[in-house]
Parts: sequence; C-alpha cells; structure tokens
Amino acid sequence: MRIMGIDPGIAIVGFGVLEKQGSQLKPIQYGSIQTEAGLPVPLRLKQIFEAMQEILATYQPEEMAVEKLFFNRNVTTAFTVGQARGVILLAAELAGVPVYEYTPLQVKQAVTGYGGADKKQIQEMIRLLLHLKEVPKPDDVADALGIAVTHAQFRNFTKIVEGVHK
Amino acid sequence: MRIMGIDPGIAIVGFGVLEKQGSQLKPIQYGSIQTEAGLPVPLRLKQIFEAMQEILATYQPEEMAVEKLFFNRNVTTAFTVGQARGVILLAAELAGVPVYEYTPLQVKQAVTGYGGADKKQIQEMIRLLLHLKEVPKPDDVADALGIAVTHAQFRNFTKIVEGVHK
Repeated sequence: MRIMGIDPGIAIVGFGVLEKQGSQLKPIQYGSIQTEAGLPVPLRLKQIFEAMQEILATYQPEEMAVEKLFFNRNVTTAFTVGQARGVILLAAELAGVPVYEYTPLQVKQAVTGYGGADKKQIQEMIRLLLHLKEVPKPDDVADALGIAVTHAQFRNFTKIVEGVHK
Repeated sequence: MRIMGIDPGIAIVGFGVLEKQGSQLKPIQYGSIQTEAGLPVPLRLKQIFEAMQEILATYQPEEMAVEKLFFNRNVTTAFTVGQARGVILLAAELAGVPVYEYTPLQVKQAVTGYGGADKKQIQEMIRLLLHLKEVPKPDDVADALGIAVTHAQFRNFTKIVEGVHK
C-alpha cells in the first residue's frame, strides 16, 4: 500500500511517499514543491498543480492524506493555503487517488502515541519510525511525512476494528 | 474586449461574461456552476474546474476578474472558498487568461459611484447598466457580473490616466 502525505502551501508544498508493508513503513521519496514569492498566484498554482501531477504519476500513491482544515490560523493564511490545497485535491481527484484528512491532534496521537507532544518530538519520532538519518527539512516535508504516517496508522487501526479496509 | 467576472465558492460559483464596446457593456452570458453538498470536496473541485474550462473555451474571455481576499469572513469560509478559488485561478492560467482582483469597496465605487451603497442598490445598478429585466439570481451571479463591471470600469480609468491598456 503506497501512501502520500501532503502539507499544502503556496510557497512550499511538502510531500512524502511511504510504502506500508504490514506494520513496516518504508520511505519511498519525500521533498517539496517550491514557488517563487514574486510570481502571480495563478502561475504559482499552475506550477504546484503540474508538479503534483508529475509526482502522482511518478510515485503512483494509492491514497493521499492531508491535514484537515486548521483552526488556529488567520483568515489570510487560510485563504492562501486553501487555494494551494484546492489544486492539490484537484490533482489527486484527476489521478483517481482518494484523499483522507486528519487533525493535528490525530497526527500527534498516531506518531507519538499521545496528544501532548511538541513539534520537535513529533519530528524526531518520524525520523525514528522511517529510519532516517536526519529530520527532513524544511518543516513542511517532515509534516507531510507525519500525515502519511498518520494515515498508515489509522488505516491499520480501522482494519483491526472494522475489518473493512484491505 | 471580453471580460469574465467570477464569484467563487464550493457550492455555487457565479460567472458573468461581458463584452465591452467603447463605454458600452453587453452581457454575453451569465449563470452559475453548482455542486452537490454531499459529494467529496475533491470531486466538487474537479466539477468546478471542468465547468470553468468549458466556460472559458465557450466564451473566450480575454481577462478575468475576481474579488480580492475578503477580510470579513471566518477562517472556515476563507479556507473553503480558497480551495474553489484555487482551481478557478488554475483554469484561467491554463487558458492563458490574466486575472485581476478588486476589493468589495472598489466594486461599490465602480458600480454605484460611491462606497456607501448596499447590496440591493448594487444589484439594481448592475441590472440597469446591463439592461437586464431582472436582477440575476442567485446573488453569486449578480456578484460575478458586478466584478466584471468593475474591471470594465477600472480598465477604462487606467486607459485614460495611463494610456497603457488597449
């Protein structure tokens, strides 16, 4: 089962692709899509959309996970991130990849086992879980891997409880 | 000069296409793209994207206008509208149509000549300016026409002052 996690943004989109084999998680690829601050927003959205299409075609994830609407930011950030998130969800839909959403609390619980972990602890746990030498940079990449790990864990959990997911 | 105004949303996208001939504004087509509330958001974004591509191909606008980031709404609305706006800007960019942004105050000034007009007055002015029998419904369509009228006026103004736009 190949899972892709995405952390959307207009300047930086973090992505992380994992292969889930039983209870093992193997990182396939991770990185970021970056767009230049001075460019018009429609052009930046096109760059993100086309990069997403390329990543989806290259790594062929079967499922995608993104953070659910965040509540702690301001309206301008929500609007800007929303625009980038829109073209990312569109790319997924056009590629036939279903999208799952998780709250920041679910990410904390999935990665560290409890809801009180701070950002550093989460990043360190992701590094350990995926056997990486260093925490991926920028934060957006680590966050994308965190969302992917979360989906991998929650899928598993759902399987045990409900026996529905394969 | 053919101008398209857009009022973005996930449930309803209002659009209005005008032909500007000198100081005359002729409505070419207006209406809305609507998506069903129960459907997954990625699918609704795809429906909006594909409908936008069809409208752009059919009416061939040379320029598009949308409302600038609004400040008076809550984070959830900004996020949801942002997602729809993202795929709309993407469709415009892919079609090579430049996008212009206007604040609600600029719309009021352009349509009614002063900033104190209420929604009803603006809609009635749009109806008169475009020689329509009735105010188009839902509000999103009237708003889209208002944005298109605004761009038509501001273009004109820029032409007189700067002599740059054709």
